[in-house]
Amino acid sequence: MKPLTLRAPLLPRWQRQLESTSHRSTRAWRSSPLRHRYDVQKRRLATSTDVVQDANRDPNDKREKVVILGSGWAGYVLARQLDKRKYRVVVVSPRTYFVFTPLLNDTTVGTLEFRHVLESIRKPKSGVEFIQGWADDVNFADKIVTIEPSVLDPDVGHALTGPRKQNEQQTNNGLAIDPKFPHGPWEKKVQMGGTGSNQVPTFPIHYDKLVIAVGTYSQTFGTKGVRENAWFLKDVRDAVSIRRRILELFELALLPIMPEETKKYLLHFAIVGGGPTGMEFAACLSDLIREDMSKLHPHLMKYVRISLYDVAPKVLPMFDASLSDYAVKQYQRQNIEIKTSHQVEELRKGLPNDENARNDQDSQVKGRVYTIRTKQEGDVGIGMCVWSTGNMNNPFVAKALDHVRRYPTGSAQNIQGEVADPMQRQWIIHRDARSGVLLVDDHFRVNLTTECAAGMDEHDKPKAYMNDVFALGDSSKLMSGALPATAQVANQEAIWLGKTLNKHPEADGFARAPGFSFKDMGVLTYLGGSSAIFQGSGNGKDGASPKGLKGLSAYLVWRGAYLTMTLSWRNRLNVAWQWLTVKIFGRDVSRF
Amino acid sequence: MKPLTLRAPLLPRWQRQLESTSHRSTRAWRSSPLRHRYDVQKRRLATSTDVVQDANRDPNDKREKVVILGSGWAGYVLARQLDKRKYRVVVVSPRTYFVFTPLLNDTTVGTLEFRHVLESIRKPKSGVEFIQGWADDVNFADKIVTIEPSVLDPDVGHALTGPRKQNEQQTNNGLAIDPKFPHGPWEKKVQMGGTGSNQVPTFPIHYDKLVIAVGTYSQTFGTKGVRENAWFLKDVRDAVSIRRRILELFELALLPIMPEETKKYLLHFAIVGGGPTGMEFAACLSDLIREDMSKLHPHLMKYVRISLYDVAPKVLPMFDASLSDYAVKQYQRQNIEIKTSHQVEELRKGLPNDENARNDQDSQVKGRVYTIRTKQEGDVGIGMCVWSTGNMNNPFVAKALDHVRRYPTGSAQNIQGEVADPMQRQWIIHRDARSGVLLVDDHFRVNLTTECAAGMDEHDKPKAYMNDVFALGDSSKLMSGALPATAQVANQEAIWLGKTLNKHPEADGFARAPGFSFKDMGVLTYLGGSSAIFQGSGNGKDGASPKGLKGLSAYLVWRGAYLTMTLSWRNRLNVAWQWLTVKIFGRDVSRF
Repeated sequence: MKPLTLRAPLLPRWQRQLESTSHRSTRAWRSSPLRHRYDVQKRRLATSTDVVQDANRDPNDKREKVVILGSGWAGYVLARQLDKRKYRVVVVSPRTYFVFTPLLNDTTVGTLEFRHVLESIRKPKSGVEFIQGWADDVNFADKIVTIEPSVLDPDVGHALTGPRKQNEQQTNNGLAIDPKFPHGPWEKKVQMGGTGSNQVPTFPIHYDKLVIAVGTYSQTFGTKGVRENAWFLKDVRDAVSIRRRILELFELALLPIMPEETKKYLLHFAIVGGGPTGMEFAACLSDLIREDMSKLHPHLMKYVRISLYDVAPKVLPMFDASLSDYAVKQYQRQNIEIKTSHQVEELRKGLPNDENARNDQDSQVKGRVYTIRTKQEGDVGIGMCVWSTGNMNNPFVAKALDHVRRYPTGSAQNIQGEVADPMQRQWIIHRDARSGVLLVDDHFRVNLTTECAAGMDEHDKPKAYMNDVFALGDSSKLMSGALPATAQVANQEAIWLGKTLNKHPEADGFARAPGFSFKDMGVLTYLGGSSAIFQGSGNGKDGASPKGLKGLSAYLVWRGAYLTMTLSWRNRLNVAWQWLTVKIFGRDVSRF
Repeated sequence: MKPLTLRAPLLPRWQRQLESTSHRSTRAWRSSPLRHRYDVQKRRLATSTDVVQDANRDPNDKREKVVILGSGWAGYVLARQLDKRKYRVVVVSPRTYFVFTPLLNDTTVGTLEFRHVLESIRKPKSGVEFIQGWADDVNFADKIVTIEPSVLDPDVGHALTGPRKQNEQQTNNGLAIDPKFPHGPWEKKVQMGGTGSNQVPTFPIHYDKLVIAVGTYSQTFGTKGVRENAWFLKDVRDAVSIRRRILELFELALLPIMPEETKKYLLHFAIVGGGPTGMEFAACLSDLIREDMSKLHPHLMKYVRISLYDVAPKVLPMFDASLSDYAVKQYQRQNIEIKTSHQVEELRKGLPNDENARNDQDSQVKGRVYTIRTKQEGDVGIGMCVWSTGNMNNPFVAKALDHVRRYPTGSAQNIQGEVADPMQRQWIIHRDARSGVLLVDDHFRVNLTTECAAGMDEHDKPKAYMNDVFALGDSSKLMSGALPATAQVANQEAIWLGKTLNKHPEADGFARAPGFSFKDMGVLTYLGGSSAIFQGSGNGKDGASPKGLKGLSAYLVWRGAYLTMTLSWRNRLNVAWQWLTVKIFGRDVSRF
């Protein structure tokens, strides 16, 4: 059998050569000059890893080192859950905080302040270590993650959609080509999440157990102009810039020289995506306008419009018809126009029905207005578009984890009997064919499989799992069936994994532990004006049919539930305080 | 006598021609084709002014229109003070809020949140109208201010130091030359405060009374590299970026790959300026490090240094020796090194004693560190430099108000008898020779004088004041003697002017009202660690000698005084709440 050739296009050439020869136990390799270089490199990695480990470490510390990639719901909750007497927990994330996403919408309009929905990962006595950086690469055989620091990265804190504008500019500026990314920083960004600014050298850290919880990027379906011109709503800096923009649009419309027509465009808010995030944002925006802006600027109210677009014939598809119909009625009462079965074709700067606008951005007014084009309505002038149409796979999962360069002998357990000579095969990470996320078993272990040789049946392919690499949250999918990409799911998965690892630190015990099963606690969406809809689950213990709540009662459940969840006491008190002051004094509209 | 030639280099040529001929009542002018153009232009201005006025205005509104330029202590307090039944109040300011500057330092370290020290100028039922823009020019004869909108201006919310980097880039990008500013946007920025991005057209607004309260810019004394590399501390976005930078420096120092030497540079904080602002910032920074960072990162504490530089031999010169000595001891106890008689020569990016660093900004570490060079110490590596060495005159005051293009017949009152044929003279605004700020009488009226003709004695020059143009705060100086450039002075001036205008809406009554006199309420500086110094005034009513307080008692006076001053009830409660939560939970260190 001809040995399979490894493809590892992400590595510098010398490393590719090393990796591709390292598992060939041929005479040629043993006597190769590359071998020495490989050994040196391996020693260097080991040394620098030790340095990294020992910076803050007691040399008598014998705990297993759990490296968690990501500080979202899965990563943050797991880091808190793990028993620090048994595990040394190191979180690696591009941002220094966890975002309590269910309340992020409230911060875009000033109902809450940004810091009220953030929990710093660095807390005294938490026992959690933290490194601010992107994971660039994983070497499963040597148990090493390569980290690219993100401290100075301007993209941190924003929803990521793929290559961003900064990177295009950097490419154009003729930066030297990084040998690791021969196609330029663009490629680096798409694949790794880093900015390509190569701010500080990457460095390796060692793990005993690795948890991949890097989440997803924002989906644009490649719609023209969306990546450049839309506001996304996934992280705290997104919320900051949405809040600034809303207030900015009112200030622009208030300028005495602004033409009537332009005021209409400026104060037309478009939202794309009829899921809970988009709908709740529309509700919060409507609250701000009705409760605060209408008092400050009564004469502007005639210009304000909120339009919500969705390509599907129905918004909030996860709710029963009675609840989603109720929601639609609530939105209509708040003058939110819901435009279902509308397909967005383009989002651009400039006035509607003005083709020259694209080349004429310097003109006084055009550069301030956006145009959204749908198949059904054509061009419509807007002040901003908030885009919330779901997730796309994280490039780290899609590309960096694509190929397993060496079979991780120490970690991998074959599933279908013994595989003959596993080192001779080209192993790949087992991923979902459609979404590309990591397929995991009910213990969240990441699986390996091999590339399909010609004529080989899918079922006959060798399979293995790694007993020290886990994936949680939106970057994973259970083989037993996909769960919704919600905070609730990620939270339950992290709690299960944390508890099970605490109970069974040994691989054998862990493997025998009963697997994860999801308990649906229902879904909830805020509708504005102190109203919400809640739908319980019929899959609960008692097998009851789904129960629904709507109006004020659902709103109270909503506020109560959110206040008692993951937030720290500091933020629970802050949130309650802020809700009280907003009720009394209204929202602050200073813009800075 | 040869008619004086007007110099009005800031105006477009056609307008210069018009203005320079408009007050010559010669036969040539009457029959000139320019006359028609001038009349058309005047009508156009009048019309557009009406449009601006009437946008939100009841046509039956007969109140006098008071336009206030600026939203600092003087402008904001006056706007609140004026009786809205007698005056229609329009505030013009580049920012939408007032900053409660005495507490701004607390926001740089998270003791308070940014919004807790801001008061929005737009408040329901305040009766104050607001336009977000820079004042570009004033036509005293026609009572018209030209406004440049600032809604999209990226410099708004930052301390201004003169031309900023953005403008240099814009000049380099080869923007078309604005005819109004033939020397390019740079000139525009220096003179006007605008960014030169010419975002929307300027527009005129009419006033009945004008109050100039535009404040000052930050002084750098032209020290090399300071404008580009220092952090200033005057407005809320300065505080935002200082807070981000402090947390960023700790994250950088925590990266496992950071060399020991670089950690020392990164965590060395330099402050330049031994006045209350610089000293209080040092105290707040020391609080943050001692109370929060030391718990999060005990192993980093050995690298942390705070150095405060001042060129004078003594810090806090406004305090008695016993109090300032006490302060210096307090600072030393908190490991703040006070380096008096140190002269800063340069601030640059890069490592100390490394001349190549200037041309090698891309290197991995150098671009992250700054170097401060003093005459006494030479190069010292630092993570950031906060610059607070006082004020420089606002370019709007220095340049835009330099020449009075036409004598304002309706407003001006001659002081030294009747001036023969005032239209024939070149009038200028009477300004302080040294600082260039506006000289005002004890009614804050702006004064006019003429340029010195050859051989004319200063005392003999014709003088006049305008009975409808006032200047307050740091952009003004009382002829009877300069007052300190403090919030307290601006606040008292604004209250006096507001009350006197409310009592005497007629010019005659106003002129007869007793003039302003300042009541010194003492000075106060926070020293960190719940300690402060307070020095009362010996110039009070009872003629008592100055009294001093120090330690906890001064701290309690300080907190109490600040909470009951200008802040709204919303912010008083927020500040008290935040102080409580910080005492219990510590400061939030999430960075976004």
